[in-house]
Amino acid sequence: MNKQVLLADQIVSAIHSVVGAGPVNLHEPSFTGNEWLYVKECLDSTFVSSVGKFSDRFEDDLVAYTGAKHAVAVVNGTAALHIALMLAGVKPNDEVLVPALTFIATANAISYCSAIPHFVDSEEATLGMATDKLRDYLQSHTHQKSGQCVNISTGKVIRAMVPMHTYGHPVDINGLLAVAHDFNIAIVEDAAESLGSTYHGQHTGTFGLMGTLSFNGNKTITTGGGGAIITNDVSIARRAKHITTTAKLPHAWEFIHDEIGYNYRLPNLNAALGCAQLEQLPEKLIAKRSLFDLYKVAFELLEGFKLLVEPAQCHSNYWLQTIILNADQAHHRDDILKATNESGLMTRPVWRLMHQLKPFAKCPRMDLTMAEQLAQRLINIPSSPNLLKIVE
Amino acid sequence: MNKQVLLADQIVSAIHSVVGAGPVNLHEPSFTGNEWLYVKECLDSTFVSSVGKFSDRFEDDLVAYTGAKHAVAVVNGTAALHIALMLAGVKPNDEVLVPALTFIATANAISYCSAIPHFVDSEEATLGMATDKLRDYLQSHTHQKSGQCVNISTGKVIRAMVPMHTYGHPVDINGLLAVAHDFNIAIVEDAAESLGSTYHGQHTGTFGLMGTLSFNGNKTITTGGGGAIITNDVSIARRAKHITTTAKLPHAWEFIHDEIGYNYRLPNLNAALGCAQLEQLPEKLIAKRSLFDLYKVAFELLEGFKLLVEPAQCHSNYWLQTIILNADQAHHRDDILKATNESGLMTRPVWRLMHQLKPFAKCPRMDLTMAEQLAQRLINIPSSPNLLKIVE
Repeated sequence: MNKQVLLADQIVSAIHSVVGAGPVNLHEPSFTGNEWLYVKECLDSTFVSSVGKFSDRFEDDLVAYTGAKHAVAVVNGTAALHIALMLAGVKPNDEVLVPALTFIATANAISYCSAIPHFVDSEEATLGMATDKLRDYLQSHTHQKSGQCVNISTGKVIRAMVPMHTYGHPVDINGLLAVAHDFNIAIVEDAAESLGSTYHGQHTGTFGLMGTLSFNGNKTITTGGGGAIITNDVSIARRAKHITTTAKLPHAWEFIHDEIGYNYRLPNLNAALGCAQLEQLPEKLIAKRSLFDLYKVAFELLEGFKLLVEPAQCHSNYWLQTIILNADQAHHRDDILKATNESGLMTRPVWRLMHQLKPFAKCPRMDLTMAEQLAQRLINIPSSPNLLKIVE
Repeated sequence: MNKQVLLADQIVSAIHSVVGAGPVNLHEPSFTGNEWLYVKECLDSTFVSSVGKFSDRFEDDLVAYTGAKHAVAVVNGTAALHIALMLAGVKPNDEVLVPALTFIATANAISYCSAIPHFVDSEEATLGMATDKLRDYLQSHTHQKSGQCVNISTGKVIRAMVPMHTYGHPVDINGLLAVAHDFNIAIVEDAAESLGSTYHGQHTGTFGLMGTLSFNGNKTITTGGGGAIITNDVSIARRAKHITTTAKLPHAWEFIHDEIGYNYRLPNLNAALGCAQLEQLPEKLIAKRSLFDLYKVAFELLEGFKLLVEPAQCHSNYWLQTIILNADQAHHRDDILKATNESGLMTRPVWRLMHQLKPFAKCPRMDLTMAEQLAQRLINIPSSPNLLKIVE
């Protein structure tokens, strides 16, 4: 009991030494650039809705920033995933590989396609999909049929995989691309958390057929609610734009829609906020990295856990700063969560694993030992880019 | 040819006499109240996303304005319809009665439930679902089985109907409620266009099990993009809130979701705009009614068409001012559309009827003679509430 209290207390003190007395949120947005200017311009122009210069500009700015050839802004990251999966060819009753360790949106979007999430284990270095384990699993549990990967147990086609860059740390995407290639599986990258993160110098979300971004209020930059699909494929980009804008054909006055589309366009008002936020992304990333450095120093002499570090040859946005308890300290997780939150420091564990949630309990899955271990060991600590100002 | 040109020219002149030289849009928003104040407050508070005081206030304000007991704000009217249909019990392969004369969102939302739109004819007085014709049709084409209305031809359950208050004019909702009652069909009212419209003194959208609103940029008031579900049923309201916010259970730090939910919450930023807009709704409605009065005078001596008037015992918001050509003048429609648009007056015909769109061409439908006639005769003319300021 004493040691347990000690570890929790040590962590509380160390975090306070970095972020000040608090209370401190896990992650909050800050608007210190052109937000007012652009939002006001948006109101003054009256173009707040589905048409407007900021919607177009935000897409152009995302292209310029990520290096993807095309970007389509949508109402949120979930909508981006939904459409990306559709355009990756996911059909009703297909299976889609997805980490058990993810936010529920990844799995929900699969359900919106009437497809079935198939859960994959994680690896400790990246917290993302475990490449080698996945390859072995697919080797023994699937066969190829007419160029498709078929789950031997269920007989269903495994159409796509959705690796997620957890907390902003790039997944082993090259490894996964090789697996996807070898087994004829499309990749949609869930880069909701990793805007600003690169893998071998290339922006996350630009490796797969499509990548999806989120600009929810808790993300590194925000549009209130918003997301985007990024892709290098022009025909996919055009389809994404069409289908997210009710599939209406261009005409001066006629309303003709050639397929069942969605009302997923990001409003110009939200895009205006996004343009201003994106201008500040580089400085936010610097601030987040500095915060990491301060935590590193503060935790240096403590034992029983470590601060999560970006994978080799990767540059992480450090969206959520994360401590990972040593395996033999996992039983202290809830005490640490309790002590930090009671002390005004908002912390949280990883999301409840997908296969442990009622709606997905019966979905197919591989052995998830590492994800289950990680779920007991991971704790996110305050990560806002503006935290440094408190201690300046 | 001469007469045809004459009618178009007469209409062009008459509209110019009301709205000025133009160019004039069909419907555009105006922000002349507390929009900037509230949006700025939202930015300053940093609560722009899924949590914030304006989201809650906007729902409270909608309750106060419409007289519904509960309101749940969502990202747009399409999302509101999607969730309302789910909560009305619409299941895959059910049929849902919907006017052929509507915007595609009504039919799309049915498709999102994997259900099938079943198209209903309209009546001239309201442009909405034709009550008597629907009753006769259901009498001869359905039978009751275990308290459900079954389509004899398809064997599928007709679970719900979605009457739409076209251009803001209330549909014959009392008549439709009686039909729905007699045939065991749930009613979700698509009140996307009718905020501010009442039927026998009661706000549209509050008669059915649920009603849905839209605050898209082209509506009477706007949140950029936004919508709401209104209902008098507390358990439905609670379910709607839960399912539109990823079905997450309340907990200080755990992420547990008990069903497949949606990321449909209206961001606080957009709700802030909505709060300010709703304050101005009464004056916008007065302005729109005054515009109707001016059009009435301007069109008084012209022949071949009439200005659409609110149904008896109804108070319309006159969202889109509409002229309806006499049946024998329907062939002039496209000339009038061309002449007005070329003259800088944005006008448009009704949406392409649903059964004439590729994605819905094979859906079940009754005889749609009146909808097809109306589609050749209806033209929306400039309707913005701020148009009056141009001529003041």
